Amino acid sequence: MTDAAWDNTDKHADHQKSGLRHSKIAVAQVGGPTAVINGSLYGFIKRIRQLEESAEIIGIHDGMSGLLENRMSAIKPEQPLEWLRAQPGSALGAGRKSLTAEDIETCVNGLRDRDIHALALAGGNGTMWACRQIELKARELGYELQVIGIPKTVDNDIMETDHTPGFPSAAKFVAHAVRDLGADLASMRSFEQVRVVETMGRNVGWLAAASGYFKQTVDDAPHLIYVPESRFDLEKMLADVACIQQRLGYCLIVVSEGLRDCHDRPISANGINNGKQNGQGLRALGGVGAYIAEEIGERLGVSCRYENLGMLQRCASLALSGQDQAEAEAVGCKAAELLLDGHTGEMVTIRRLQNTPYRWETGSAPFIKVAGMEREFDSACLGQGGLIAESYKTWLAPFIGDNQPYKQFSMD
Amino acid sequence: MTDAAWDNTDKHADHQKSGLRHSKIAVAQVGGPTAVINGSLYGFIKRIRQLEESAEIIGIHDGMSGLLENRMSAIKPEQPLEWLRAQPGSALGAGRKSLTAEDIETCVNGLRDRDIHALALAGGNGTMWACRQIELKARELGYELQVIGIPKTVDNDIMETDHTPGFPSAAKFVAHAVRDLGADLASMRSFEQVRVVETMGRNVGWLAAASGYFKQTVDDAPHLIYVPESRFDLEKMLADVACIQQRLGYCLIVVSEGLRDCHDRPISANGINNGKQNGQGLRALGGVGAYIAEEIGERLGVSCRYENLGMLQRCASLALSGQDQAEAEAVGCKAAELLLDGHTGEMVTIRRLQNTPYRWETGSAPFIKVAGMEREFDSACLGQGGLIAESYKTWLAPFIGDNQPYKQFSMD
Repeated sequence: MTDAAWDNTDKHADHQKSGLRHSKIAVAQVGGPTAVINGSLYGFIKRIRQLEESAEIIGIHDGMSGLLENRMSAIKPEQPLEWLRAQPGSALGAGRKSLTAEDIETCVNGLRDRDIHALALAGGNGTMWACRQIELKARELGYELQVIGIPKTVDNDIMETDHTPGFPSAAKFVAHAVRDLGADLASMRSFEQVRVVETMGRNVGWLAAASGYFKQTVDDAPHLIYVPESRFDLEKMLADVACIQQRLGYCLIVVSEGLRDCHDRPISANGINNGKQNGQGLRALGGVGAYIAEEIGERLGVSCRYENLGMLQRCASLALSGQDQAEAEAVGCKAAELLLDGHTGEMVTIRRLQNTPYRWETGSAPFIKVAGMEREFDSACLGQGGLIAESYKTWLAPFIGDNQPYKQFSMD
Repeated sequence: MTDAAWDNTDKHADHQKSGLRHSKIAVAQVGGPTAVINGSLYGFIKRIRQLEESAEIIGIHDGMSGLLENRMSAIKPEQPLEWLRAQPGSALGAGRKSLTAEDIETCVNGLRDRDIHALALAGGNGTMWACRQIELKARELGYELQVIGIPKTVDNDIMETDHTPGFPSAAKFVAHAVRDLGADLASMRSFEQVRVVETMGRNVGWLAAASGYFKQTVDDAPHLIYVPESRFDLEKMLADVACIQQRLGYCLIVVSEGLRDCHDRPISANGINNGKQNGQGLRALGGVGAYIAEEIGERLGVSCRYENLGMLQRCASLALSGQDQAEAEAVGCKAAELLLDGHTGEMVTIRRLQNTPYRWETGSAPFIKVAGMEREFDSACLGQGGLIAESYKTWLAPFIGDNQPYKQFSMD
């Protein structure tokens, strides 16, 4: 280590040759888990073992918390890890933690203490921002550190990648769940008329919109889809629900948890969110969907039920998308290759080469192009009456598969 | 038709020969749908078409409501119906309706008006009670009517059958969901400690207990399971949760929606249910699980989230059990055979012949042995710390399959 600023190119070459840089490689899983986050970890470990057998792979516990508090353990090299490919939850432990400038320095010093010069973090937008800060801080402190980001979020809100591992399985879950709940409600319409289904998506509507995948006509469920990218108008919705319910006898509505009103304020279970927080953390007893269901029941005088698809969206093993699984693993492999090739400051990406038949490859993008940004869903892909654009269906098809809608009896 | 009491045996024989009795056969789907209720309908229609080609099969709309209001339509004979095998929701329309003695007579008269002498109703305990009343009333009125029951309920609370079609798929959904939510929570324990998962089961705990299928040690989720067959003690639960959370860092609890307190009163979202009902019908914004999660959060000062598995338990196509699908269809076939063989007053049953490898057959039981009864889950099958008896796991195995629990990392 010298006092001089670290020269990116030269030192890379030196360390790659000496193998010093890659004697210890740390990896963490940040933020909420997905159904395939362990698949990326599997790909990462497998590829490191293949390419740099002597490397010690160090698992950081509980995401950013573990990085900040220097809680890490070596992953025993002899153990079989195939089980990671199909197991939801973050096997290393997840963690949500906003880092201050001081925290960032603490993280770098923690890595220095352990002589770790290579770091891979799997996470979303916030994590990519943290990756960039850690990389900059290390450079500022003259500590040689490679940082690579592995994209992961069911929200699908990361720039520069066609989509993020975790989203395809979540989308598959949501699309099937809403088709099934629609068939269930259709048959119950003689005593239950309206159902409000809430999906994940704090700021973006990719998941909520995926609920329209199996829908082919305005009569199929879902009949209305609301995403955070468009301002939500309660009165307009009530009028639409009344109209649909009158026409079909029932109405299924999908709402993204991050819905905002016409003043751009988030809507919570108690109507407009007044910012009140529970000191003990989140107790999600009902979000925006509960509020909307309550309004529909009271204002329209119909039986209205609220269904929160909940945490299963990010962990349901029965909805695991084979494509998602393959891509998550490939993204982990690519992160390993980038690190061992001396790269730093990049997030792995997925590039879509062709829709039908679907072809893809991994790539990478600099943190600067993804950190702090948010990739919105194009609400122009949402049509009237819950229909979604054919282009969005085609884009989703590799993740969900055959999109036959349910049928109805032909009776005399 | 004569005034004399209808002689079961002789008339059967006459009509079978003449084919009169089976020129019109009516069928209805009563109560909440299941993932395989249409599979039974498919088996029923297919078998009738095979055995009595000239029979007109009449679908009753919206369950009991349609029977009472004489809303029925002939099912067009030429249409392919294979789609029924994998489509959730009741294709004929479901309906919940308690029938008075007068209603029963109205139903019989409605059938008489249409000259329908054969009726099959798919439903649960309440439906089997109604089947019996309709059959008795027809006999009293001197109207020849055969009535056969097709068991259907995710609750699995019907006597005389090893289990009910619909339950296996629901159990598969619950077992997988709880294993997945457990893996998700385990990885989140640094900022979310307790999760309360609510399952269906108004009066019985079969489904809630199925959540323990993948669990092998007390450390695996679920850590606590509560069923309606045992009185729920809040203080005891709080002590147990605190203990488990201290030991493992997190705790996943499964509660059946029909939980009752030590005074045998149902517990609702607002604590003990005071019987208040919403005039517009059910708006399920949170049941017993919401109440318990609230208590845990406030009393133990931990982050506690409530997850209601909701209607997906009875309709999730991704959780469709192949065994359930096969049995549902066979039960429908058997109902057709019983009717065409001149039987009446019976519900189709499933008999388990052998556990491993699983062998089964269909049978039948008189309504009098099932109507108005409830088959409870043996709470002795629930052990300490959410463990379920091996005998219950063996019994569930044909429905859910391989029961490997999730793994954990081995770290230095």
